[in-house]
Amino acid sequence: MTSIDLNADLGEGFGRWRLTDDEQLLSVVTSANVACGFHAGDPVTMRRVCELAAGRGVRIGAQVSYRDLAGFGRRAMDVPPGELAAEVAYQIGALGVFARAAGTRVSYVKPHGALYNRIVHDEEQARAVVDGVRLADAGLPVLGLPGSRFLALAGEAGLPTVTEAFADRAYTDEGTLVPRGRDGAVITDGDAVVERSVGLARSGTVVSRSGKRVPVHARSLCLHGDTPGAVELARRVRAALTSSGVRVEAFA
Amino acid sequence: MTSIDLNADLGEGFGRWRLTDDEQLLSVVTSANVACGFHAGDPVTMRRVCELAAGRGVRIGAQVSYRDLAGFGRRAMDVPPGELAAEVAYQIGALGVFARAAGTRVSYVKPHGALYNRIVHDEEQARAVVDGVRLADAGLPVLGLPGSRFLALAGEAGLPTVTEAFADRAYTDEGTLVPRGRDGAVITDGDAVVERSVGLARSGTVVSRSGKRVPVHARSLCLHGDTPGAVELARRVRAALTSSGVRVEAFA
Amino acid sequence: MTSIDLNADLGEGFGRWRLTDDEQLLSVVTSANVACGFHAGDPVTMRRVCELAAGRGVRIGAQVSYRDLAGFGRRAMDVPPGELAAEVAYQIGALGVFARAAGTRVSYVKPHGALYNRIVHDEEQARAVVDGVRLADAGLPVLGLPGSRFLALAGEAGLPTVTEAFADRAYTDEGTLVPRGRDGAVITDGDAVVERSVGLARSGTVVSRSGKRVPVHARSLCLHGDTPGAVELARRVRAALTSSGVRVEAFA
Amino acid sequence: MTSIDLNADLGEGFGRWRLTDDEQLLSVVTSANVACGFHAGDPVTMRRVCELAAGRGVRIGAQVSYRDLAGFGRRAMDVPPGELAAEVAYQIGALGVFARAAGTRVSYVKPHGALYNRIVHDEEQARAVVDGVRLADAGLPVLGLPGSRFLALAGEAGLPTVTEAFADRAYTDEGTLVPRGRDGAVITDGDAVVERSVGLARSGTVVSRSGKRVPVHARSLCLHGDTPGAVELARRVRAALTSSGVRVEAFA
Repeated sequence: MTSIDLNADLGEGFGRWRLTDDEQLLSVVTSANVACGFHAGDPVTMRRVCELAAGRGVRIGAQVSYRDLAGFGRRAMDVPPGELAAEVAYQIGALGVFARAAGTRVSYVKPHGALYNRIVHDEEQARAVVDGVRLADAGLPVLGLPGSRFLALAGEAGLPTVTEAFADRAYTDEGTLVPRGRDGAVITDGDAVVERSVGLARSGTVVSRSGKRVPVHARSLCLHGDTPGAVELARRVRAALTSSGVRVEAFA
Repeated sequence: MTSIDLNADLGEGFGRWRLTDDEQLLSVVTSANVACGFHAGDPVTMRRVCELAAGRGVRIGAQVSYRDLAGFGRRAMDVPPGELAAEVAYQIGALGVFARAAGTRVSYVKPHGALYNRIVHDEEQARAVVDGVRLADAGLPVLGLPGSRFLALAGEAGLPTVTEAFADRAYTDEGTLVPRGRDGAVITDGDAVVERSVGLARSGTVVSRSGKRVPVHARSLCLHGDTPGAVELARRVRAALTSSGVRVEAFA
Repeated sequence: MTSIDLNADLGEGFGRWRLTDDEQLLSVVTSANVACGFHAGDPVTMRRVCELAAGRGVRIGAQVSYRDLAGFGRRAMDVPPGELAAEVAYQIGALGVFARAAGTRVSYVKPHGALYNRIVHDEEQARAVVDGVRLADAGLPVLGLPGSRFLALAGEAGLPTVTEAFADRAYTDEGTLVPRGRDGAVITDGDAVVERSVGLARSGTVVSRSGKRVPVHARSLCLHGDTPGAVELARRVRAALTSSGVRVEAFA
Repeated sequence: MTSIDLNADLGEGFGRWRLTDDEQLLSVVTSANVACGFHAGDPVTMRRVCELAAGRGVRIGAQVSYRDLAGFGRRAMDVPPGELAAEVAYQIGALGVFARAAGTRVSYVKPHGALYNRIVHDEEQARAVVDGVRLADAGLPVLGLPGSRFLALAGEAGLPTVTEAFADRAYTDEGTLVPRGRDGAVITDGDAVVERSVGLARSGTVVSRSGKRVPVHARSLCLHGDTPGAVELARRVRAALTSSGVRVEAFA
């Protein structure tokens, strides 16, 4: 039986500000990418999300970022590799304390925003993130884009790697993401998102922007939780996966 | 044979800025209170200090603080207890990753600056710090002032407690510190500091401001490292302790 | 004819996070307390709110705060007076650039959150805020609580003072606010808020918690904009004031 | 008679941390690039430096930066232009309040660190900085590298432009700086720095790394103040300029 992991970004408020509907999303996903304080995520929120996730058996991942609250981690930064590695480790360590207090542990790492995008291609920063993860835990899985330098270097360094796909993003014929900002890069039609989710999970394929069915091997689907209707759509995706015979469960 | 621990604040730079002479101080102290990023201490520095400390067999402690880089943690803050507990745990967790990467662990917690002073008397915040420490590790020793609410509550909560004294601070007849700002509160004469250190370690007493010999039970002496001549004075204190038959070693 | 000013806190997002419905509130209030970056308020938001306010003829005020993004300025801090004065001036200066770019100016200062509450009684900090305002502009009006040390010291220092009242807060028989946290401190019934607004504006009185009509002299009413239904309630208040013959306009 | 301006970065501490010897440097330079809080510079320091500068007749400039205390503004960031412009204006406005309180004004803007370097070539960010300066003051001079996109766009937008040179940096045959990190990029020999300063001021030329005398037109020389011996070297440069008949004075 085919299985798929569902991940989403959680705990992305800061102090007085809320963004993600953590409670609702935790009833849908199997892996929670918890913000660790550098782009979002205060200690109280981190603690609460870890407790909720642990209580529901949702796996906790460290969503590590550039240090950039003002830009929500969406502004690429030329951080020297030594600094970046240490910043990544710091964030994992901080989250770890709340995961352990909730009776579980940090089970994976997923870079956020501009850092996620940059280490698809940037060798130096990709290596720095890998170094940072290994500083924290040399056996910690990392979640990323298939074909990225990040996953390649992580694999070489002995870290388990987990690929992910985006049911609400357009793909090229080469199986890469159409960059945000391009026409049609984001798929807003809910039915299409549901259908693509099932396709990605069952056959490991998606229809590209040009209409071609292309392979996208992903062990996890990333759901977005910060837009109106996102939780409802996430629920529909999960229901459609289950009813089409896909087991929704955290990656092994 | 009498023994005493020597502790000092380390890693109190941030990014481009340096404050403490970490390398030199690590050749004197037996316990390093490492800044964790809230009043000082960037991840690169935390990593480096942990590596140096581990290499020299110096014990690593988490120097936790209010979140206040601009004020160096010296401005008391009315942080609600739930926030304070989570902030304390966050800092301990972040430091822990570097301590473990260096082959050791966070061995104790010492609050910094305004937080240290506040929880001498403030029941609610003292309890919050205890809660934060226990979130991180229910068996982690805490370092503080004899007679403080913090140590009392920590002890009730099952945390090992370690008392400390200050050889360069004046004491009252009751064995409490003369508040900074009062005349003669800080002892600047090096010879006096050395002599008081030996007295505190050997007989558990110190001469109060009024000239009375009063008991001050301390398992650790706090040395200051952020003033000119501080490292040299710290060396003299250690040498005098050793030559007077006191074993300088980390608390058990 | 009686007139009253309506003020509200605006621009209280930060980067990715939004809180206040600035656009809607600006169609109701006559004075906008714009967050200046210390508890909330990024430069883009400050610019946008100033442009919107200027376009609608709404007066711009600097909503100055402790430096505390993580706590939204709601945690009292023991900031030394020299630091506090400079921090207040810094915020006013930063906002001023956007007010001037929008063709207007910063017309008053209103402290935020914990700072607002603290300088009701704290002589030293109240004086520091006055000093900070005068550093920025020795003729700048300040908005605050009737009877507060802040307004008293501001008046002595030659700053114009503007008193404000809260239609959604309970008052004591002495005309002071019932502290938040006490039973009934916040009035949630919309009709009552509307009625109290009219009473405050027309007769300068409000019914205290014990049922007594007490005098509260206020030239401005503070409306809250960060709760669901707040904008709608603000509109009702304004409409009721107008239809009861009160002119809604910025204080002179 | 030839004249030259001497500028240096000042006020680059933050809270407890100091970096630049502001008092000494202010006895040498004619233009002070004052840090505005984004890479360094707290409000107390900004106020103090403005008072000292005004007292000595030294011109005050806003040293604007990316928002990056942890990286001291030395990490290039992909800040969207609207954010960058507003951030630049914010910093100028904040400094302005202290300059005016000291009886003077912000007389120019000089970008710092990674931002300075990036807008030599980056069209979009260069334009954003120009927009930010103009938001604050449409007639404010900007200081930058000859041939940079920043100065070109500033000039097109109507801002007065001031070129600067570095006596302690190696130049190429094309009159551009040898990038830091390359062999010989930084000139550490004091005598050479003094001699090059005089050459740049008197003849508008410098000897390139390959030994060729190349033209470098600069109305200001940048002195560095954050290294040991920097103040002494700055004094020597100023004395040598004066004794060789160059008038040291702020740019017109």
